[in-house]
Amino acid sequence: MQMNKVTFLPHQREIEVPAGESLIRAALNAGVHINASCGGEGVCGKCRVLIEQGEVAEGVSERLSAEDVAKGYRLACLSEVTADVVVRIPVESSIDVSVLNKQASTRRKATIKHIDFNSLKEQGLFIPPVEKKFLQLSPPDVQNNMPDVTRLIEYLKLQSDEHKLELTLAVIRKLPDVLRQNDFKITITLVRPVRDNGKTLIIDVQPGDTTAANYAVAMDIGTTTVYGQLIDLSSGECLGEYGEFNGQISYGEDVISRIIYAEKPEGRKKLQEVVVATINKVIGEILRQAKVDGDNIATITLAGNTTMTQLLVDIEPRYLRRAPYVPASSLYPPFSAVTIGIDINPKVIALLYPVVSSYVGGDIVAGVMGSGLYRSEKLTLYLDIGTNAEIVIGNRDWLACTACSAGPAFEGGGIEFGMRASKGAIEDFSLDPVTFEPMLLTIGNIRPKGICGSGLINMTAEMLEMGVINNRGHFNRDLNTPRIRCNNGIWEYVLAWREETLIDRDISLSEPDIDNLIRAKGAIYSGCMTLLEEVGLTMDKIEHIILAGGFGSYIDLDRAMTIGLLPEIEADRVTFIGNGSLLGARMSSLTKRIRKDVVEVTKKMTNFELSETPSYMSNYVAAMFLPHTEIEKFPRTKQRIEGRGRQ
Amino acid sequence: MQMNKVTFLPHQREIEVPAGESLIRAALNAGVHINASCGGEGVCGKCRVLIEQGEVAEGVSERLSAEDVAKGYRLACLSEVTADVVVRIPVESSIDVSVLNKQASTRRKATIKHIDFNSLKEQGLFIPPVEKKFLQLSPPDVQNNMPDVTRLIEYLKLQSDEHKLELTLAVIRKLPDVLRQNDFKITITLVRPVRDNGKTLIIDVQPGDTTAANYAVAMDIGTTTVYGQLIDLSSGECLGEYGEFNGQISYGEDVISRIIYAEKPEGRKKLQEVVVATINKVIGEILRQAKVDGDNIATITLAGNTTMTQLLVDIEPRYLRRAPYVPASSLYPPFSAVTIGIDINPKVIALLYPVVSSYVGGDIVAGVMGSGLYRSEKLTLYLDIGTNAEIVIGNRDWLACTACSAGPAFEGGGIEFGMRASKGAIEDFSLDPVTFEPMLLTIGNIRPKGICGSGLINMTAEMLEMGVINNRGHFNRDLNTPRIRCNNGIWEYVLAWREETLIDRDISLSEPDIDNLIRAKGAIYSGCMTLLEEVGLTMDKIEHIILAGGFGSYIDLDRAMTIGLLPEIEADRVTFIGNGSLLGARMSSLTKRIRKDVVEVTKKMTNFELSETPSYMSNYVAAMFLPHTEIEKFPRTKQRIEGRGRQ
Repeated sequence: MQMNKVTFLPHQREIEVPAGESLIRAALNAGVHINASCGGEGVCGKCRVLIEQGEVAEGVSERLSAEDVAKGYRLACLSEVTADVVVRIPVESSIDVSVLNKQASTRRKATIKHIDFNSLKEQGLFIPPVEKKFLQLSPPDVQNNMPDVTRLIEYLKLQSDEHKLELTLAVIRKLPDVLRQNDFKITITLVRPVRDNGKTLIIDVQPGDTTAANYAVAMDIGTTTVYGQLIDLSSGECLGEYGEFNGQISYGEDVISRIIYAEKPEGRKKLQEVVVATINKVIGEILRQAKVDGDNIATITLAGNTTMTQLLVDIEPRYLRRAPYVPASSLYPPFSAVTIGIDINPKVIALLYPVVSSYVGGDIVAGVMGSGLYRSEKLTLYLDIGTNAEIVIGNRDWLACTACSAGPAFEGGGIEFGMRASKGAIEDFSLDPVTFEPMLLTIGNIRPKGICGSGLINMTAEMLEMGVINNRGHFNRDLNTPRIRCNNGIWEYVLAWREETLIDRDISLSEPDIDNLIRAKGAIYSGCMTLLEEVGLTMDKIEHIILAGGFGSYIDLDRAMTIGLLPEIEADRVTFIGNGSLLGARMSSLTKRIRKDVVEVTKKMTNFELSETPSYMSNYVAAMFLPHTEIEKFPRTKQRIEGRGRQ
Repeated sequence: MQMNKVTFLPHQREIEVPAGESLIRAALNAGVHINASCGGEGVCGKCRVLIEQGEVAEGVSERLSAEDVAKGYRLACLSEVTADVVVRIPVESSIDVSVLNKQASTRRKATIKHIDFNSLKEQGLFIPPVEKKFLQLSPPDVQNNMPDVTRLIEYLKLQSDEHKLELTLAVIRKLPDVLRQNDFKITITLVRPVRDNGKTLIIDVQPGDTTAANYAVAMDIGTTTVYGQLIDLSSGECLGEYGEFNGQISYGEDVISRIIYAEKPEGRKKLQEVVVATINKVIGEILRQAKVDGDNIATITLAGNTTMTQLLVDIEPRYLRRAPYVPASSLYPPFSAVTIGIDINPKVIALLYPVVSSYVGGDIVAGVMGSGLYRSEKLTLYLDIGTNAEIVIGNRDWLACTACSAGPAFEGGGIEFGMRASKGAIEDFSLDPVTFEPMLLTIGNIRPKGICGSGLINMTAEMLEMGVINNRGHFNRDLNTPRIRCNNGIWEYVLAWREETLIDRDISLSEPDIDNLIRAKGAIYSGCMTLLEEVGLTMDKIEHIILAGGFGSYIDLDRAMTIGLLPEIEADRVTFIGNGSLLGARMSSLTKRIRKDVVEVTKKMTNFELSETPSYMSNYVAAMFLPHTEIEKFPRTKQRIEGRGRQ
């Protein structure tokens, strides 16, 4: 990817950004504040900047006079970086040079972990559990008329050194005709045993040589969304990926409401059917994308939380939500995918990721496997943040896990102007330290409609650092700005005035909103602390953080550490794996090792019920501050807040 | 059973018969000839006998005057033996005292082999592959909330020393509710592994203690009939048995015509459906008989010939009847019985007996297993006689097998008055050595309709011994009896005159009929000889004969040896096992040992294709005599024939 250098004057801040990045986002990521209140749509006209060297694409607007354009003025939100460029922030835009001293951190995301197929190979871990082999058997005659299956097995023994073979009834059914269709030249599909002394199962036979077409499907069955990937088992590549809302959403947004629905007559059956319908839609789409014949899919791996897992295979979920919160099973046997209604060729054996407890499910186990955490020497904190946050701590020798209810704040729930991370959601935010005017960027660069979870974290962190709120999340009532006001007894900060929004109302962030965020981040942080204490460790021993889940990818690490959601750690020691559940499902298709190891790993994952751990409540109360009661745990945040104080 | 002694005068022949036996059958079995031509119906009145001591029940007829009855005369065919009795055959009935010198052998049946359940136990072989266990688990609490399956497995490890356990998805589905239905008291059904290091599979869980109800179904899928037995796995007893014509009969009488039908569009599907419909009818009936709940059936074992096996599981059979006669598979994996349409609870795993070749099928393998032949030290000839005869020779160290086409003579096919063994078929026969008048008994003791296979053997043997036919099956044209005649150029013996029959025609046995029998017995005998030669042995090394099949049970051993169908051997070294296929299926339910051993035994069974064995044709030609070209192979028959010659 082509990178361009952008230099902001008078700050002299430099940043490398990919070609096509908008200038205003480059500024925000460089920690340079530019007033902006329309979300990046180009209508407020506040983000006027002067291009001093180089050129940007676009950036012209009716908000700029022809004269200004000729001088080199552009709107930062409309400008695309296409080459190295030097940009001056005019005084009227930056308002005050004191902005130069703003202590804001630059934006840092976690390292994104890509499965490097070659590295798997180098580590000797590329052992696809399903293989194809092309064979040329000799036809029978009366002197040599052993059964077709015997002929196949004898050939494999002598010519391929394959032993301990078993065939499915379906293969026995196909074999006689397939053998005679192409002069006893066939391709067989072999599923390797999980245990070392197990049997290799032959699940398909096709006429001629079809070894090039050998695919797997990996699926994450999320409460909200179902994702699928089509994996080429020869190359390890992902040939198609598709996500779709879980059809169960119509029957309840979260797992609890699904469980309640499942208790209605026919409810469980309905939920099973609709999630399978979603799965079928996803499989259809990835096959369409990849232009692959479904007959060459050999295996499907599915991972989901415990409720999704039980509902998928039609198991009563009621005991999951009632004390003592007992799941039906940890491990599931492989089963024929068609038997639960999956629209796939009948040879496909489905593997379902094991679960640990009612609230630490197969999605988390999949993340632990797929991320390689279970093979790591480093003490690692694995965190999947959503309405429920799941926490795993450990390394290759031991693993402890728990789950806590973070509440819906990260998904915009319980926040007055909260919304999911979709178009019009304010996701990035900066404050002018003198005027307290905002710089806000929305998803899709349109006028704001609301605030998404990552935006909420960013603005809370920024306000804490700028002294707009204190460590309890209360607004500084003494600041001289019309944006902080008391509305019907509730203090709030106006992010965008009515005329700047798409919803014809002032969009604001209130103290109750911040309080909800504090509760959410407090629950997670104290969950991590409690789990560490249970195994006799402390936060500072964490060597590596793995963030999983859709939300994790949007998190600004420094901001998340500033509010005390994550412990302070170097950004290069934080890895983001995206959808850990999908990653684990995919990795299971590429390496038999995981299918084997997952049984032991799941047994090893010691589950802690926070409700049964007395220290959890005191840890939670201590975490109900920004960033924490003991600010010493967050030295960098402490330094920035105190630095501001000294100005 | 109460046995009574019957003494026949003037012959002074004694025989023990069970109470209720008819007097005429007792005479026949004692080798005492009494003229009788109405099959035992009491209408010809020829079988007048005088009761000299003791009494018989019934025996009175309008054919006897009141005076005769008062003197003690009875009709032998209507008299039932109920006590020890002395019976005189009057001169007018025995016709001539020369009958005293008749060399006829007494009737001897093979020893009937019953599975002695206790002897299985004594041998340590009663190891049912499916077991039930009652468990009392402790309920979970928040300190101890492991998944239900884990709780079950931990309990079994600690309390029952059960390891290597696996559960089906269906059991995982049931477990949560079943556990909580009866305070965590449950009964589980375990299927033991076939291999020693294999896993035990838990296939069911029921609330409370249901250990007393644990059943298996054993089935023989014959071309003509389908038999089923319900086995109590606690006691080993058979609780119900039922046979039904195979519904496929409408689509062809024999396997060849079924295979041809299967090649029609939808033909194979149709045949699969109708045989399963028959199976379902049989299962329904045995459950009804035993008043057992089908939910407590845990396993089903099926055995059938190769064509029946392939049609049952919907496998193309066309290659079975075309050179080089290749079956699809020898071994079949266990499969869920419901998947092929069997109407049984879904936990039931079906086991299908392996086959050896296109014409040595699972029915024969089942017989080899069920009869214990594969564990025997003695050199054994196993013979299943039908349209096709299957032959196995060997012992616990080696096994050779083959099949030959005997033609339909034993089932009455190709015989002018041939019929299946049903009511009205002449099954027993004796000849007066002077007058050549017959004594004939029919099944059901009604007037004759025709001749069944065992009758055919008996009359051919009797005629050979009496010199009525020669060793080529040609009638002695010089005998002074109206019963031997040439009808339209074909020589025949009239068994019953028109007015004595139920079909309003003379019933006779012709030279072409005898020729067909000679071809049938010759095919079988030469098959045995050829197989023995192939392994370097001769007939006289045979230490034990096992006869299987419905037909075998009706065979009179001495008569079968007289015509050269079986080698001469002491009757106590011949065992009749009845339906060997059903026996093997049943034994598989009672001892895991067979499920394990059958894999090796099947591999060990070396198949010989007679058509590819040059000596078969010369052996066949040599066997086209009564009893054989080399009469020295049949010393007893030789002696009887020569003894007659010396009179």
